Amino acid sequence: MNSRIRVDWRASVSLTGSVVKWLAVPMLFPVALALYYGRGIEAFLVTVPLALVVGYSLERLHDDPGEALGAREGFLMVALTWLLVSLVGAVPYLAEGWLTAYGSASTLKWPVDALFESMSGFTTTGSTVMGTISFESHSRALLMWRQLSQWLGGMGIVVLAIAILPELSVGGAQLMDAEAPGPGIEKLTPRIAETARTLWGLYLGLTALEILGLYLFHRLGMAPEMTPYNAVAHGFTTMPTGGFSPEAMSIEAFSAVVQWFVVPFMIAAGTNFALFWHCWNRDLRTVVGDVEFGSYLGIIGVLSALVAGLLFTGPGHDALVGALEPSVRHAVFQVVSIVTTTGYASMDFTLWGENAKYVLLFAMFVGGSAGSTGGSIKVIRWVVIVKSLSRELFTTIHPEAVQPVRLGDTAIDEGTIRGVYAFTLLYLVIFGVAAVIVVVVGHTEVSLSAFEATSAVAATLGNVGPGVGAVGPMANFEGFPVVSKLLMVFLMWIGRLEVFPVLVLLTRAYWRS
Amino acid sequence: MNSRIRVDWRASVSLTGSVVKWLAVPMLFPVALALYYGRGIEAFLVTVPLALVVGYSLERLHDDPGEALGAREGFLMVALTWLLVSLVGAVPYLAEGWLTAYGSASTLKWPVDALFESMSGFTTTGSTVMGTISFESHSRALLMWRQLSQWLGGMGIVVLAIAILPELSVGGAQLMDAEAPGPGIEKLTPRIAETARTLWGLYLGLTALEILGLYLFHRLGMAPEMTPYNAVAHGFTTMPTGGFSPEAMSIEAFSAVVQWFVVPFMIAAGTNFALFWHCWNRDLRTVVGDVEFGSYLGIIGVLSALVAGLLFTGPGHDALVGALEPSVRHAVFQVVSIVTTTGYASMDFTLWGENAKYVLLFAMFVGGSAGSTGGSIKVIRWVVIVKSLSRELFTTIHPEAVQPVRLGDTAIDEGTIRGVYAFTLLYLVIFGVAAVIVVVVGHTEVSLSAFEATSAVAATLGNVGPGVGAVGPMANFEGFPVVSKLLMVFLMWIGRLEVFPVLVLLTRAYWRS
Ligand SMILES: [K+]
Ligand SMILES: [K+]
Repeated sequence: MNSRIRVDWRASVSLTGSVVKWLAVPMLFPVALALYYGRGIEAFLVTVPLALVVGYSLERLHDDPGEALGAREGFLMVALTWLLVSLVGAVPYLAEGWLTAYGSASTLKWPVDALFESMSGFTTTGSTVMGTISFESHSRALLMWRQLSQWLGGMGIVVLAIAILPELSVGGAQLMDAEAPGPGIEKLTPRIAETARTLWGLYLGLTALEILGLYLFHRLGMAPEMTPYNAVAHGFTTMPTGGFSPEAMSIEAFSAVVQWFVVPFMIAAGTNFALFWHCWNRDLRTVVGDVEFGSYLGIIGVLSALVAGLLFTGPGHDALVGALEPSVRHAVFQVVSIVTTTGYASMDFTLWGENAKYVLLFAMFVGGSAGSTGGSIKVIRWVVIVKSLSRELFTTIHPEAVQPVRLGDTAIDEGTIRGVYAFTLLYLVIFGVAAVIVVVVGHTEVSLSAFEATSAVAATLGNVGPGVGAVGPMANFEGFPVVSKLLMVFLMWIGRLEVFPVLVLLTRAYWRS
Repeated sequence: MNSRIRVDWRASVSLTGSVVKWLAVPMLFPVALALYYGRGIEAFLVTVPLALVVGYSLERLHDDPGEALGAREGFLMVALTWLLVSLVGAVPYLAEGWLTAYGSASTLKWPVDALFESMSGFTTTGSTVMGTISFESHSRALLMWRQLSQWLGGMGIVVLAIAILPELSVGGAQLMDAEAPGPGIEKLTPRIAETARTLWGLYLGLTALEILGLYLFHRLGMAPEMTPYNAVAHGFTTMPTGGFSPEAMSIEAFSAVVQWFVVPFMIAAGTNFALFWHCWNRDLRTVVGDVEFGSYLGIIGVLSALVAGLLFTGPGHDALVGALEPSVRHAVFQVVSIVTTTGYASMDFTLWGENAKYVLLFAMFVGGSAGSTGGSIKVIRWVVIVKSLSRELFTTIHPEAVQPVRLGDTAIDEGTIRGVYAFTLLYLVIFGVAAVIVVVVGHTEVSLSAFEATSAVAATLGNVGPGVGAVGPMANFEGFPVVSKLLMVFLMWIGRLEVFPVLVLLTRAYWRS
């Protein structure tokens, strides 16, 4: 019924305001760092009041937004929340650029760059336009804000993926619910708020575990660079599959043991969070029998072995050819980082041979699991696609046969299959069109190769982060013209929100009463 | 019923034999050329008897194959026909290589290369592994056989696309019937044999018209290189969207007027042949109102304008920057050549800027119209995809709405939409997997860039022909290792037959009774 009357945009904006005002609370952490290190307070003296004023003002647009919330208002709220949070979250970058002497050379003082960095943070993408990443040109407080934006974005995604999108049934997102074998989380803890608390507890616990582990390596003398600051910073960007790092060299700045230690956390971040709940309840049979989890590990295993083989045998990067542990380590790290869409780098894989890099490019389209913070197309959709295509071959020969597509014991609804097909095609079409635009528009500093441009588009739409070459892990997206940067902001935004919730807003039918 | 009993492979093989034996007849044309030019008869002295013996032997495997032909036998027959014809059609290349002195340096003396060239011919792909294309190293008779193989392949495709595949209802192929507005050809002329004769009449007529036109330019002194031999040779490879040329420089060997003249014939070759029938009956309203035809011309127009703009403004190929007529001519020619999957080149577009080449790479996925000789995904499927995805956005907001997807006045069946989605995804998945394999396997002579390898896979699967760079229009596919060449033979084969008829043969369900 509700879908036939005019969309109540005030309700959506009001709820977005409630989220924005809460931004002031986590900002107290960089504020504390600014006071401790004696640098960087300016950015937050501007932004904390701004978040409160904007948040409270928008909130007052509607008296009872929860009551007015239908599916259409839900789409608008989801899309607006990420947009508005990113806009407010961009202000610290602008402020430090214009209000401090050390920040005046920052590329982030330009509005489009600040928005790019902020959207990249809250969508947990990790592509950067920060020209020089160092504690000289940016305050530790601001760099922590950048890391924190990913952690906050990840909190949003967990709730979105498990509690909100399945309700809206977009592009096969209901699978995130259907796939979790046994009772889904939201059936166990019926109300969204309660589900959110359970998920956030898990998310926080895993983050804390990683920070402690990283710090322990530091104390044991096995990771001299992994200071408490760095431990927290990387703890903030692993679980959200974010990939930002305050180190210009990403995880290459740390020892091999740290690189190995981060791998299982990236894998956990790309796993359906419902499975952790089952682990917690000692229901290991459910975890072992999970089709998506098995496929996810299988894909990681096969791609890691392939890349390790290519790096070890060469031709490619001479330092790796014939070196077993480094070949395996960098292959596993990079494959896990790309498949889970984390985007960390254990080395500059731009130096690799074309073949290994090409495997990484295609791995950008795999994506994490449903119900995780991972982005891109996602493993569950590929499982459904492969099974449905097999079924299609079967029904080509036996047109009279009725054969449902099954995931474990569950037959998948035909509407869900159509949703998965449609989502994946839409994703690939958007990728293709955007790639052509980015190549045609070009690059202001270097002659961008087709491969590099392709990787930039795949990395932003899939919320992966770095591409290769001119947009590789040790480089940045700064050299794109404004129009390409804005396009990529759009790609990060729609990619993160499973495309449909944003695109429906662009149709006439959405706004028509 | 028939689909539940064991597949009658003898019936399929017998019908394939009937096709193979008929190969002896068109071979009389190169035989005549061999006698006239006094060179090249050896190849056909071997192959003509071979085709007859193989054909008649296989034909005798079954007494009444037409009677035994169900859907499964149809798939097998279609797949086997292209495979066996390509195998027999490869023999002239082998024979000239091993039996003549001038041919002994030919790369086509090697079995895998001969098969590649022959499959590329009969699938009307036009990718070549011929090292040196010249009348010195190959007889005019053999080069005409190469051209003729495309013309014969095109004859097969016309009948396959309009009369056979819609019957088998694979991957949305029934659209080729549904889309033709008004009565479909096979309803007007009910029997396949009669339909085939009508289509072949059209095909022959357009071929003759082009040959005459080309020869006329020659006689008028406007195309000195367009000898009668060349006029016939290019007439043989335009209507099948084939793209082979006995000139190493393809259409660049001829004057601008010839290049312009070939464009409308390529466009015609990529048009649904049913529309010509309507034209012939002066039913122009049907032609003008055809959704696919309009989209096809629209795509060509937009891409041509884009590429012309990129070539004219540069940076790119200096000879074109600022030169209006050449920029427009090469842009239109190349876009038409790629979209229709003809594969001719009016210049070596490898010299173009990365941006214009990138547009061509994506254009390889458009494809010709249904019911034409064009390959790749095809315009009608893209039209259905775009319309279905719009519908998907609409039903995301209005889940209760029932809104069929329409083409003109016809509502498309949901099963057909699923077939189109499945076909396109399967096509893209095969493309991705094959591209990774080709890159990982590498290239024996040059370090293959990711872009070049990608273009090679897109060009063979889409039956386009040339890629860029090391596999560009003035280069060839010779430098790939055997495993990649065999993979591409497979890609040309499945791409040409709309994927499903070949892939179903690889399933267990197909062979099980
Ligand atoms: K990321
Ligand atoms: K072709």
